[in-house]
Amino acid sequence: MNIYDVSHKAGVSIATVSRVLNGNPNVSPKTRQKVLDVMQELGYTPNVFARGLGLNTMKTIGILCLDSSDPFLANAVYYLEQNLRKYGYDIILCCTGYDLKNKQKYLDLLLSKRVDAVILVGSSFLEPQRKDNTYLFQAAASVPVIIINGYINHPNIYCALCDDAQAVFDATTKLIENGRTNILYLYHSKSYSGQQKLSGYKEAILSAGLKLDENLMLLCKNDMHQTKEAITEAAANGVKFDAVIAAEDLLAVGAIKYAKQAGLKIPKDLAVIGYNNSLLSSCCEPELTTIDNHIETISITAVNTLMRVFSGNDVPNRTTISNDLVERGTTDFAKNEI
Amino acid sequence: MNIYDVSHKAGVSIATVSRVLNGNPNVSPKTRQKVLDVMQELGYTPNVFARGLGLNTMKTIGILCLDSSDPFLANAVYYLEQNLRKYGYDIILCCTGYDLKNKQKYLDLLLSKRVDAVILVGSSFLEPQRKDNTYLFQAAASVPVIIINGYINHPNIYCALCDDAQAVFDATTKLIENGRTNILYLYHSKSYSGQQKLSGYKEAILSAGLKLDENLMLLCKNDMHQTKEAITEAAANGVKFDAVIAAEDLLAVGAIKYAKQAGLKIPKDLAVIGYNNSLLSSCCEPELTTIDNHIETISITAVNTLMRVFSGNDVPNRTTISNDLVERGTTDFAKNEI
Repeated sequence: MNIYDVSHKAGVSIATVSRVLNGNPNVSPKTRQKVLDVMQELGYTPNVFARGLGLNTMKTIGILCLDSSDPFLANAVYYLEQNLRKYGYDIILCCTGYDLKNKQKYLDLLLSKRVDAVILVGSSFLEPQRKDNTYLFQAAASVPVIIINGYINHPNIYCALCDDAQAVFDATTKLIENGRTNILYLYHSKSYSGQQKLSGYKEAILSAGLKLDENLMLLCKNDMHQTKEAITEAAANGVKFDAVIAAEDLLAVGAIKYAKQAGLKIPKDLAVIGYNNSLLSSCCEPELTTIDNHIETISITAVNTLMRVFSGNDVPNRTTISNDLVERGTTDFAKNEI
Repeated sequence: MNIYDVSHKAGVSIATVSRVLNGNPNVSPKTRQKVLDVMQELGYTPNVFARGLGLNTMKTIGILCLDSSDPFLANAVYYLEQNLRKYGYDIILCCTGYDLKNKQKYLDLLLSKRVDAVILVGSSFLEPQRKDNTYLFQAAASVPVIIINGYINHPNIYCALCDDAQAVFDATTKLIENGRTNILYLYHSKSYSGQQKLSGYKEAILSAGLKLDENLMLLCKNDMHQTKEAITEAAANGVKFDAVIAAEDLLAVGAIKYAKQAGLKIPKDLAVIGYNNSLLSSCCEPELTTIDNHIETISITAVNTLMRVFSGNDVPNRTTISNDLVERGTTDFAKNEI
């Protein structure tokens, strides 16, 4: 028995059921009565949305994170905690790792603690096969589910993300417009976000009238030294490239290490662009040009979305945040544009 | 009314009271009866230690962290979560920032949630004035308090830390033995850990028969570019140095940036040693020699300590973890030793 059953049987939206539960005046008396009748008929206890009113609530949000020691995910957890705290919510943090069974187990565990909502940090919570996401749909039947950096269309699941495809498309296009013709793409994850980034790269290559070359799309380990080795091997096998776009700053640092070893000048012989604008991007030499996907803004958006859901508002299923290219020493766009 | 009152009135240690509460057989029948009598007389409800038995417990540990987006602290939170989870404990994460009022407020908040223990991540939870740590002593009157990377002697407070003073002493001494005579020390925090590191530096200088020079102890901002500026300014003011030890990898990266700007060769003209062995240390060029204080081991030790406290064992107030110097490209010890 859940809010879907009420919504379905009463023939109204979930938002309308939520509005009734929250005493929101924007519901006609007739609709309100119908919803209340169905709830009584089905014996529905409105525990979930009553929480938004401060009734029957622990004021606790469960955060599932793949790995909170990852600098990017750690930032997301930090900003979520800070912003949820402003609304008086505690967070229970649970690091799942990447295994589907563990994700399911810990999601069940959080729900058993009667959290008011669940936030998933990291797009790898979305499995490639829709049927494997049943565990998320089941959770969404009892509490709102928020996904950071991933998107799936399902009732009571809300997604806050950067337009990763557009970000990589724009950066790749900028390299091409600056005369780079063989752009090596480095990635380590086939998550939702990883697929979006790769599709942005492919789209940019094709839009510029260039040919897609499988050899220029290099799947790496999430380690800068192993990435350096992978690039070295590709180069030894005759793969030619004059620019690198990486799906993570860490991989881009591997490309900088490769260039140094190979005696290539950056950015003259090899331009490099990373992703995330993490601390790493300022440590390397030259400092890294990188895509900033504004994880703080994504996190704040996620919290605001959740608060609107708790208040019974109609909330869009997806909110997309724009990104910036932060230009540092591994590209020479400004110079070429003069 | 708390466990101290029982311990005091019964004339036995807290560990003994705990053993009685946990049904541990290593208590004489006479002592057991005395403790039980005092508990009855004082009307003491053994909620805290009963939790160790799975009675009246939320199986939840409160983690107070200064800033979980800091890479070092993020690692500690991650390892704590992973290891507490193995024992079936959830964590509530609460990021306080550095302001004492907020630390107090959030500690009270966690206690009001009836957490089974509190873990403080970051030595800045210890205030320089002992009286300002009253908030920790008050918390320790109701639940065990664990401090990561700090030390204070108080009942029911347990500390897991690296011997930061020894680590910096050893690294500084090694630089001196390798012929460096003017060693610049960079730090940004006057926390417990920060003071330990600084004292290790001073001790090494004095032990080697060198003179302490205030100009060689440079207080920086926790930012690599500002650190670079601070070093540049010191050099412009005539401060001479042939080596740098930094209390954080981030500051050491600032020193590497300074060397590049000043046209100094690393390690020939300037040797550099960082602290934490974070990801940053592998990003810079050359890669950074750094002190690894084994935060994973510290975190595991903290969790094991807590579990032993819950079981009513006598547990030492302080556990110190050894450290390693990870040698990379910013020092040339091996070369000189040949």
